Amino acid sequence: MKKVIVLFSGGLDSTTMLYYARAKGFRPHCLMFDYGQRHRVELRYAAAIAQQAQCPYQVVALRLPWGGSALLDKEIKLPHRTIIDPTEIPVTYVPARNIIFLSLAASMAEAIDARAIFIGANAIDYSGYPDCRSEFFQAYQKTLDRGLKSGVQEKTIKIHAPFLHKTKAQIIRLGLKLQVPYERTWSCYQGARYARRPCGACDSCVLRARGFAQAGVVDPLLK
Amino acid sequence: MKKVIVLFSGGLDSTTMLYYARAKGFRPHCLMFDYGQRHRVELRYAAAIAQQAQCPYQVVALRLPWGGSALLDKEIKLPHRTIIDPTEIPVTYVPARNIIFLSLAASMAEAIDARAIFIGANAIDYSGYPDCRSEFFQAYQKTLDRGLKSGVQEKTIKIHAPFLHKTKAQIIRLGLKLQVPYERTWSCYQGARYARRPCGACDSCVLRARGFAQAGVVDPLLK
Repeated sequence: MKKVIVLFSGGLDSTTMLYYARAKGFRPHCLMFDYGQRHRVELRYAAAIAQQAQCPYQVVALRLPWGGSALLDKEIKLPHRTIIDPTEIPVTYVPARNIIFLSLAASMAEAIDARAIFIGANAIDYSGYPDCRSEFFQAYQKTLDRGLKSGVQEKTIKIHAPFLHKTKAQIIRLGLKLQVPYERTWSCYQGARYARRPCGACDSCVLRARGFAQAGVVDPLLK
Repeated sequence: MKKVIVLFSGGLDSTTMLYYARAKGFRPHCLMFDYGQRHRVELRYAAAIAQQAQCPYQVVALRLPWGGSALLDKEIKLPHRTIIDPTEIPVTYVPARNIIFLSLAASMAEAIDARAIFIGANAIDYSGYPDCRSEFFQAYQKTLDRGLKSGVQEKTIKIHAPFLHKTKAQIIRLGLKLQVPYERTWSCYQGARYARRPCGACDSCVLRARGFAQAGVVDPLLK
């Protein structure tokens, strides 16, 4: 079985992707980040899911002392909005987050001899982050091909973003088929350390709720 | 004065670059990494130089638990060789190092509103690392243009590698004009915590010695 790295947050998209990669016959290694996010509670959810799925996981601790995001700085208020305009980049944008996460995934992939990185980015039901779009991943692929030892030796480490053009509802329907334990996933940006209930009002909650509504399913986390 | 990020190790190239950027009228912010490198002693040198040059600096701590390099894993022996073949990637290669460093520099640049990143990479007198070559930087630039908020808003953060095509001797001659305190720089990969003398045998020492010899100057660190 082919080893792959799964960028894993314990949220809806990346958990579905973990199960998807496994169903495709890959052996996923989960990579998680403790980067000072206000919803750091997601790491507890992520670890529990990885264990249940019997996938090894690794947490990298990383501080971005320059901040620059409502997810890193609790002084900045999270937006509460019901309509999300993806052409506008919100205050929850973390400067270079996916660039950083993918760089560390590439390092790990090369070191443990994995040939692919799976990322659960979504460019349809999303918050407008530029590092979740197709043209970004294409450019990053070239960066890996040219900057990694494996790249210049023509053993490319491939970035896969299989949900890029799927709606949230499509992702959820796929996940239900794969028996993804959505009741164990955490998406909410507002996450006190021992939160039990998502806030229901942040972008991430709004997108999740819309996805479940469109899929015609009740979110098991809210049952 | 325009703020810029300087990827700074306290070695010969990046110190020359710090002085170069200052001489060009930029206001450099030094970004340093404590990434588990065996020559971690370089950070003490780097901090002292940044202070002397009156430039603010930031150290990011980062562990790459998957290793994969003689610079991270003391069990792997450093090569001792007098002729360095840059078509061969040595065991001191750290998987994705410059990809990671540039990703964090991009995050910092965007957060503190700096418009450029300076990196002292050199593709002539170098160890053969793929992430030190022109085609790599070109691809990375596109990644930043497409993945950063500033990029999509057409306020590009530009990667500058002004020494890419310079020989070590040319860099040293430039540095001497700029009064770079080479006696305070540290290049050696073998760096016990309180090292005072470079080993003289690792790739980094060999390249440095060759540079000073070709510039016709005695390395002040060895005086």
